[in-house]
Amino acid sequence: MSDSPQTAVVTVTAAVIIIGDEILSGRTKDQNLGFLADALNEVGVQLHEARVVADIEADIVAAVNDLRARFDYVFTTGGIGPTHDDITADSIGAAFGLAVDHNPDAVEILKAHYAHTGAELNEARMRMARTPVGASLVENPVSKAPGFRVENVYVMAGIPSVCQAMFHSLKHELVGGDPVLSISIAVYLAEGTLAKGLTALQDKYPDVGMGSYPFYREGRFGASIVARSQIPERLAAAGEEIRQMMRDHDGEPIEQDE
Amino acid sequence: MSDSPQTAVVTVTAAVIIIGDEILSGRTKDQNLGFLADALNEVGVQLHEARVVADIEADIVAAVNDLRARFDYVFTTGGIGPTHDDITADSIGAAFGLAVDHNPDAVEILKAHYAHTGAELNEARMRMARTPVGASLVENPVSKAPGFRVENVYVMAGIPSVCQAMFHSLKHELVGGDPVLSISIAVYLAEGTLAKGLTALQDKYPDVGMGSYPFYREGRFGASIVARSQIPERLAAAGEEIRQMMRDHDGEPIEQDE
Repeated sequence: MSDSPQTAVVTVTAAVIIIGDEILSGRTKDQNLGFLADALNEVGVQLHEARVVADIEADIVAAVNDLRARFDYVFTTGGIGPTHDDITADSIGAAFGLAVDHNPDAVEILKAHYAHTGAELNEARMRMARTPVGASLVENPVSKAPGFRVENVYVMAGIPSVCQAMFHSLKHELVGGDPVLSISIAVYLAEGTLAKGLTALQDKYPDVGMGSYPFYREGRFGASIVARSQIPERLAAAGEEIRQMMRDHDGEPIEQDE
Repeated sequence: MSDSPQTAVVTVTAAVIIIGDEILSGRTKDQNLGFLADALNEVGVQLHEARVVADIEADIVAAVNDLRARFDYVFTTGGIGPTHDDITADSIGAAFGLAVDHNPDAVEILKAHYAHTGAELNEARMRMARTPVGASLVENPVSKAPGFRVENVYVMAGIPSVCQAMFHSLKHELVGGDPVLSISIAVYLAEGTLAKGLTALQDKYPDVGMGSYPFYREGRFGASIVARSQIPERLAAAGEEIRQMMRDHDGEPIEQDE
């Protein structure tokens, strides 16, 4: 968490690690990154990096240890089921130098669940109760087997419905910063026409991030200019100047939902 | 490229770097990772890692230099347009310690294109001709402004249609390895029932990667077991044993398209 003395804006950052061969092989199209990007924004946490890594312990450990040192929070998805390819708990333990064992609270949750369903709580299912020693649990209202947290690293399931439910279970624990506000203004002008003026505005407003995203619609080229800032007055002022620049090029600014 | 003496299987690896604040902010849902995962498979290149990084030069340089040392190929998407937030060319130059300048061939392509469209080839549009010195170009049949290659790093556009067209332009240059073949067998049995037998099979077939992906359909729990290998005979033998294991648990194997 960094606190800039000039503006007293509090910025809280996060990274996401998507664990799973099935994403890298193309078998499964990831749905968790987009969800988490939106959901983190809503609680004042800015996603700064994401990685997709294979089911290889050394790769997971390297990603976790790099990212947990650089960002306020890290969220992992995937690899916490009962089968041999679910190696996230062991990998998180290795990253923190912690032993991994059956978590007593998780064991109780699974016992109650399988007593209810009638399925056998065998050794494989008991794997889903394993966490690094001292981890706290993340509730799973969908399929019960919990996620967990070690320091600033939250470990969630890969199945999108379960990942989403787990995030809703844990989000009250997150301490967010000032939210990033954004505006999006489209115009039927080519990026190459807007670029020079936009560069000048970006230089004038270093505390407002500006991005340009070209599009082609109804036979015409255009661009959406997205501006983001944690300071509402600066965002509003930058937005006015962006609109004026568009008009100066005979373009009509079109407000968009962000 | 590694060549195992035991089986003479050639494995060629790659990483993808998706560059862009708009993916991390949730504004844009990435479509390039899934495309590249599939397309690389088809040419015998295995995607081993992917990263999404912000429009920050130091972050791009760190990702490029880490991944180009570890994998045979690196593919980047995004950040090669005409506006100030398009910093990929400069970042690739910084990663390789190369100066970045207007590429004469790229300048010719842009001159011909804008002469044809009648739009002005201004300074901003000329930015799209900048590459690290010595880079070779990647043709862009959609919107002309080219991608480029430096050593084992290919730089492509972020707009999905342009990214896909650029990949088709460059794929004949890639030297692939033995393709990864895969089978997918579904069964209406819970993962926790299959896990023990699957672990034993994974131990027996270290050259066949096995993954288990649970699903819930028509009111019943099931799992898809995906097996992958570069050695067809080993994949076939493993597949037979997986099917037999399912039958031993009173499950009917269902062949799936992979």
